[in-house]
Amino acid sequence: MTNFEVRQYDAAGRLGELSVPRAGVTVQTPTILPVVNPHVQTVDPAALESDFGAEILITNSYILHGSEELREPALERGLHDLLDFSGAIMTDSGSFQLAEYGDIDVTTEEILQFQRAIGSDIGTPVDIPTPPDVDRDRAETELATTQDRLETAAAADTGEMLVSAPVQGSTYPDLRERAADHARTTGLDVFPLGAVVPLLNEYRYADLAEVVTACKRGLGEVGPVHLFGAGHPMMFAMAAALGCDLFDSAAYALYARDDRYLTVRGTELLDELDYFPCHCPVCTDHTPDELRGLDDDSRQDLLARHNLHVTYGEIRTVRQAIRAGNLLELVDSRARGHPAMLDGYRTLLDHAAQLERTDRVSKDAFFYTSTESARRPEVLRHHRRLDRFELDADEVLLTEGGSNDRYDETWGVLPPFGPYPRELADTYPLTAEVPERTDRAAREAAADGVARLVERHPDTSFTLVHDDWPEAALARVPDGVRVRDLHARE
Amino acid sequence: MTNFEVRQYDAAGRLGELSVPRAGVTVQTPTILPVVNPHVQTVDPAALESDFGAEILITNSYILHGSEELREPALERGLHDLLDFSGAIMTDSGSFQLAEYGDIDVTTEEILQFQRAIGSDIGTPVDIPTPPDVDRDRAETELATTQDRLETAAAADTGEMLVSAPVQGSTYPDLRERAADHARTTGLDVFPLGAVVPLLNEYRYADLAEVVTACKRGLGEVGPVHLFGAGHPMMFAMAAALGCDLFDSAAYALYARDDRYLTVRGTELLDELDYFPCHCPVCTDHTPDELRGLDDDSRQDLLARHNLHVTYGEIRTVRQAIRAGNLLELVDSRARGHPAMLDGYRTLLDHAAQLERTDRVSKDAFFYTSTESARRPEVLRHHRRLDRFELDADEVLLTEGGSNDRYDETWGVLPPFGPYPRELADTYPLTAEVPERTDRAAREAAADGVARLVERHPDTSFTLVHDDWPEAALARVPDGVRVRDLHARE
Repeated sequence: MTNFEVRQYDAAGRLGELSVPRAGVTVQTPTILPVVNPHVQTVDPAALESDFGAEILITNSYILHGSEELREPALERGLHDLLDFSGAIMTDSGSFQLAEYGDIDVTTEEILQFQRAIGSDIGTPVDIPTPPDVDRDRAETELATTQDRLETAAAADTGEMLVSAPVQGSTYPDLRERAADHARTTGLDVFPLGAVVPLLNEYRYADLAEVVTACKRGLGEVGPVHLFGAGHPMMFAMAAALGCDLFDSAAYALYARDDRYLTVRGTELLDELDYFPCHCPVCTDHTPDELRGLDDDSRQDLLARHNLHVTYGEIRTVRQAIRAGNLLELVDSRARGHPAMLDGYRTLLDHAAQLERTDRVSKDAFFYTSTESARRPEVLRHHRRLDRFELDADEVLLTEGGSNDRYDETWGVLPPFGPYPRELADTYPLTAEVPERTDRAAREAAADGVARLVERHPDTSFTLVHDDWPEAALARVPDGVRVRDLHARE
Repeated sequence: MTNFEVRQYDAAGRLGELSVPRAGVTVQTPTILPVVNPHVQTVDPAALESDFGAEILITNSYILHGSEELREPALERGLHDLLDFSGAIMTDSGSFQLAEYGDIDVTTEEILQFQRAIGSDIGTPVDIPTPPDVDRDRAETELATTQDRLETAAAADTGEMLVSAPVQGSTYPDLRERAADHARTTGLDVFPLGAVVPLLNEYRYADLAEVVTACKRGLGEVGPVHLFGAGHPMMFAMAAALGCDLFDSAAYALYARDDRYLTVRGTELLDELDYFPCHCPVCTDHTPDELRGLDDDSRQDLLARHNLHVTYGEIRTVRQAIRAGNLLELVDSRARGHPAMLDGYRTLLDHAAQLERTDRVSKDAFFYTSTESARRPEVLRHHRRLDRFELDADEVLLTEGGSNDRYDETWGVLPPFGPYPRELADTYPLTAEVPERTDRAAREAAADGVARLVERHPDTSFTLVHDDWPEAALARVPDGVRVRDLHARE
């Protein structure tokens, strides 16, 4: 029995539905869980629900557990009443405090029972958030502890409450994969990828992509996958394309407190803005000067609301992109927000084969929008498909121009895909929109396709007619192929 | 005397102020002039002003001139009262109708006098909008007529009303440049680049970039430059970077009528949206399903409002980017909306030398966000600067690693810029943020920088220590240079 259903894939990205039985709600994913501090609420949960459409939030059960003021009310009234929120509520366990302060005073059994008692819909055991770059011994030892606790959690009586199974392993891909494989076998419900916040804080998006792909290899297609502590909208598209379904973050509130302003292209400081680069309700009704003139509370409230508008807007943008089958085009665009995002995107493309496994066979249209597009999963898939095409002919023309009767067969050539049987010209991805000013990367990828086809058919004689390919692309065409430029005078 | 002042440049993009004496207002640029149809108002001018901050709009004086219903009220009450708008009002002349229907019944003198009489703040003569791709004779003949009319307009008594000088010339860059040069000399006030709508409709952004750069060569730095009929926010950043200051369009209303939905990444059809990829007030408060359930008027009103929110939001985004000095980073991101936009961006970069002339000497930080970044004006400028650096040494080390005392002098090397004196390491653009996973394009540009320096100093002996450059980059390094890989074991 699974509480998570995938409705549609795009690369490893998923449009899904998470049934949360205790709350009696179904949460659409990808989504963001705003972090609500039980003590200080910048934007209260009722407003998150009514003004931003929040279906789920996350709060910290460890803080409630240790609070003289809130512990009893939480136990008596329950979380939903205490926070005034009718959607699903996930609770964290104190692992963050453990990582920050080195010690906490509850066990996994205790905190899970407390979470159940206060009416949490998704509970969390006390895992060990091992930071990036620690030595391998520590990563392995701490992972063993985390795994014990997942097993404790799996054995506990948690009733209808879903329970999450955090995946640790620091920056060791093999440990992450092993941890994820173990987490999957526990039968727990939600899979947070833990301790990625240090990577996010340092803009280590390439390392993040390695961690996420490693975890996904272990998890397979169970879900939902929760990128714990990730709340900056600039990376939602990339993380979603890697297969993450849930994000959470206090960023909307914490950033607002520091006069920081979220955009899908990065973070701005209110002090440095002359114009709001945004069309949310806050930025439509106010100028930066006006906001600077407000008292602290009003300014923080409006900045937090702006941050939430951008955050939820990007969640919708990601969902619509998966729906339309252009999530990788969105990632391509978002990758231009910062050179470190480009590193992340380039690393994501190193794993094109992994993303290809779940990618849809057909989408609306492939847009070639950068040299990175040449490395997309669709290109890889086309190259693999070349092995399976029938080709019973002695003399074959592969051409970017028109067909020629002197050959037994004529195939088209389209960078970045390479050669294709003409009858497939109107099928995805060969219906691609490509720039008229194509580039070396696209032609090199096409040349790789030619090479793959040629090697598969050693007894066939191939002629390639190309449209002004550069040396670097032609160098990838096998020696036996006759090569002509489409515009050469013969 | 000029009515236009540039406050700041980024590439050829300008933050400016247009004083409109007759309206008594100063309009900030870049900006958009929403087209208001005197007969049918999707969003009325008072709402454009109050809800979207419109400082200027455009309406068609030819329609008013020919309207039994509105001609007299316009003459009696004046345009500002008739439309209920206190900002600046520009009027078109009927040129569009001339292009559509082949004939109109007013002369430039008549329509300018009418525009003045109804209280227009910026009038327009009857130019001939020559479409793209016509034969050269026609383009020249029609341009001669347009130029006559500009001279007529310049000689007319138009009082305080500003008058625009449309620039035609079809898709002939030399004609556009000549037309622009002539327009500049008329002493008229605003410079619309005419007949670009067919290019926009066909996504011919590369041709658009050629037309705009040609016009700008002729116009120099007079302004403001008005991209006539351009209203899709996806191309504002690119057009602004090319030096356009004003946009106008009925797109917000026309698209709404067809259930088309503007985004900065292209156009969506309401029918194909499951989620609104947007955070404007309309998309925050409604779902696509809700909008589809509304009656036609309510739906069109909300779609037009969405379209306007995105449009004004992008105008603010472009202004803030010029302010912050990252307009080309914005263009880089927007270019990923469609392969034809990438063509436009690549063509823009063909004109990096032209854009470099007005580009700021120092900005916050150069972000390398794509292989296209290697062709930005800042890279070109650095290469030119290499000719002017002092270099009095026999043995010079150019290195991506640390310095070495065996050489008389050690310079740094940073792709895409190439070599630089170490004391400049903390100055723009060498403070660039570059991806850790750099690319061939960046290294080739750096190699071109090395070549330029080496050729300038034939008597100096150079050693280049590079970090894993590919063959394609090393092939650009002159033969006399000793080349070593940073990580090679010696």
